[in-house]
Amino acid sequence: MGKAGITVSPLAPASFPDLPRIAGVEFASAAAGVKYQGRTDLTLIRIAKGAQIAGVFTRSATRAACVLDNQAKLAGGGDAPDGAAIIVNSGNANAFTGARGQESVDAVTGAVALALGLPATNVYSSSTGVIGEPLPHERIVDSISDLVGRLDPAGAADAARAIMTTDTFPKGASAVIAAEGGEIRITGIAKGSGMIAPDMATMLVYIFTDAKISAPLLQDALTGGLGSSFNAITVDSDTSTSDALLLAATGQSPAAEILSLDDPAGRAFTRALHGVMRELAHLVVRDGEGATKFVEIRVTGAASDEDAHKVASAIANSPLVKTAIAGEDANWGRIVMAVGKSGAAADRDRLTIRFGDMVLAENGWRAPDYDEQAASAYMKNQELLIAVDMGMGQGAQTMWTCDLTHGYIDINADYRS
Amino acid sequence: MGKAGITVSPLAPASFPDLPRIAGVEFASAAAGVKYQGRTDLTLIRIAKGAQIAGVFTRSATRAACVLDNQAKLAGGGDAPDGAAIIVNSGNANAFTGARGQESVDAVTGAVALALGLPATNVYSSSTGVIGEPLPHERIVDSISDLVGRLDPAGAADAARAIMTTDTFPKGASAVIAAEGGEIRITGIAKGSGMIAPDMATMLVYIFTDAKISAPLLQDALTGGLGSSFNAITVDSDTSTSDALLLAATGQSPAAEILSLDDPAGRAFTRALHGVMRELAHLVVRDGEGATKFVEIRVTGAASDEDAHKVASAIANSPLVKTAIAGEDANWGRIVMAVGKSGAAADRDRLTIRFGDMVLAENGWRAPDYDEQAASAYMKNQELLIAVDMGMGQGAQTMWTCDLTHGYIDINADYRS
Repeated sequence: MGKAGITVSPLAPASFPDLPRIAGVEFASAAAGVKYQGRTDLTLIRIAKGAQIAGVFTRSATRAACVLDNQAKLAGGGDAPDGAAIIVNSGNANAFTGARGQESVDAVTGAVALALGLPATNVYSSSTGVIGEPLPHERIVDSISDLVGRLDPAGAADAARAIMTTDTFPKGASAVIAAEGGEIRITGIAKGSGMIAPDMATMLVYIFTDAKISAPLLQDALTGGLGSSFNAITVDSDTSTSDALLLAATGQSPAAEILSLDDPAGRAFTRALHGVMRELAHLVVRDGEGATKFVEIRVTGAASDEDAHKVASAIANSPLVKTAIAGEDANWGRIVMAVGKSGAAADRDRLTIRFGDMVLAENGWRAPDYDEQAASAYMKNQELLIAVDMGMGQGAQTMWTCDLTHGYIDINADYRS
Repeated sequence: MGKAGITVSPLAPASFPDLPRIAGVEFASAAAGVKYQGRTDLTLIRIAKGAQIAGVFTRSATRAACVLDNQAKLAGGGDAPDGAAIIVNSGNANAFTGARGQESVDAVTGAVALALGLPATNVYSSSTGVIGEPLPHERIVDSISDLVGRLDPAGAADAARAIMTTDTFPKGASAVIAAEGGEIRITGIAKGSGMIAPDMATMLVYIFTDAKISAPLLQDALTGGLGSSFNAITVDSDTSTSDALLLAATGQSPAAEILSLDDPAGRAFTRALHGVMRELAHLVVRDGEGATKFVEIRVTGAASDEDAHKVASAIANSPLVKTAIAGEDANWGRIVMAVGKSGAAADRDRLTIRFGDMVLAENGWRAPDYDEQAASAYMKNQELLIAVDMGMGQGAQTMWTCDLTHGYIDINADYRS
């Protein structure tokens, strides 16, 4: 349950999906009382021997100790012949906690390594929640033997709940693809609803697959999907100090090994992985703090992809655009404003603005058949498309965002996390 | 009176200041019914023969027709031997109105030129309000002869009211300096409360002085003050399509001509001008939409001034920082987050964060004598100082902003302008 009387986002899916189990991946969750009471806040994930690990992380200059630790460990290459583990707590981000931050990471990952008989260099960790408070890591360490005793291949749904902070619903997505020799499964969970404007990664995301694939190829497949998923969403333009995405492949599928991302098997895997990534990214937006509208911003015709990204970001992050959407006001003048401030090359007279299928503005002015009533009626939809064609070139970028409402203020004006 | 039941910002000064008249400058305001009813919405300003004009404008790629027209006219050099005029309407921005936008500017400035016997190239104009609606310029043209008949050197206060849109109070500031031969006066008015993150200029600002100074020197004095005034404020990170600042010098002061900005007379004038600019900029923040707190963000010790500006902007524009301030929550973790995302060179362990005189965080963690109660008590002040020392070098930037409240949502979720 969220804060400030909010129960579940109106944009939430009807139910948590039935996630396929991934051979070689087990989960256990517990209530360690790190900060929250009466709910789970700790998840241990064990990944079997022979795993390959990839990851992306926030580029924040003030990133948390666990993020720095994960990056250092992954710099070793991501090959985990002895297996690997991930331990995640919610309630405390262990960020800006000085030297003590790394001590906590060492204590927690060391305890997991000992309990599972793994090298500590293969134990990754995440912490999410309040910044600047010391992590009571002994509460986590004390819970580990209990967690180890309850590891379960069906535990992903519980894990998706345990990693939540201001999230109002757990987030999961999956894909199953037919491949030579058998099927390949991908299952992912994510958390995030505020402080969302990722840069290189996002929030907390854990994706697992049984595909046989080397860590370098896995990393390439992951990185290639960021631009159309986690790097294409924004809730409030703020970037977390804890953003991390870990992707583990167990190689236990009967399907043949993926040896290239450019052959049919590699392409099918990459497409399915990117689909799971995009779905998880959309779920984060759907749980945007206070969100009542899910908005796709589709920019085309920019002078470059970089310009398209600037324009899409400027629109998606503009408080005036986001409040107009909250108010169901077809205020396309604010789109013009955001295009103008974006820094991208623009020519007023070549700009076309569409809401859904309706052309609102073109040729430097509102469209001749502009219909205010129809535009206002469109804004009442829960899912909106705002399309901007710059008329300058071939650059394109699609982003997803939500509206800015009283709910956002309620959650953030009195919530210390 | 503002929208959404808001009367006057709690941060407003007790009263409008008594602005000194500037010899050679007259004002007249009227209710032309451009959009608003029951209030003035049109101001004509006449500047006497021999004036020198300077200006700065928004760099938005979708700037309004009147901004483009002013820029083209000022490109001629700002020397106005025949005098000059400024005509300003509120209620309609004449922005994104295609070719018709320039036609409206020509109609309005042409009518003023005819009525005052001036070349149209010396008639500047501003429009502020809704974007994308055709400007009913005939209502403005029809009011001009009435305005000409009522021009008054004491009309600045009325003008400050007529140019308001969502502003909740009129804004004026002035300075009088003793100079060789007599005093020099400076009087300015401004409007702006939302869509405020200026880039090169801001909102609508008109400043007048009786100083004897050439247009190029006047322009230099103006440009030199932007970094510590209008380019150092933000309300909501959105940049107007209509931002304009015009500065006119009539030369009618008995004081000696200013021949250099580097001699004592030039320095005194520049200092006074920059003071007026800063005061007007602060007033805009004090009227920030929904604002209840006036916040100074003081960044020092950055690797460069550019880095300091990045950090100050990231803090001042962060919705999470601004909602924490609204909630009177001393959430310095969000300051760490904003520093991290700013893109500036940062070292967690060299960062010092102060709220007022209190050190909250230093050496990579919260300060040893951090006192949550004292920090919370500090946040109840209406005026706040957040100081960040980066510990990296000599770069510095101070910015001013306000909090993000339910009032901002109220005003912008249902106000088409």
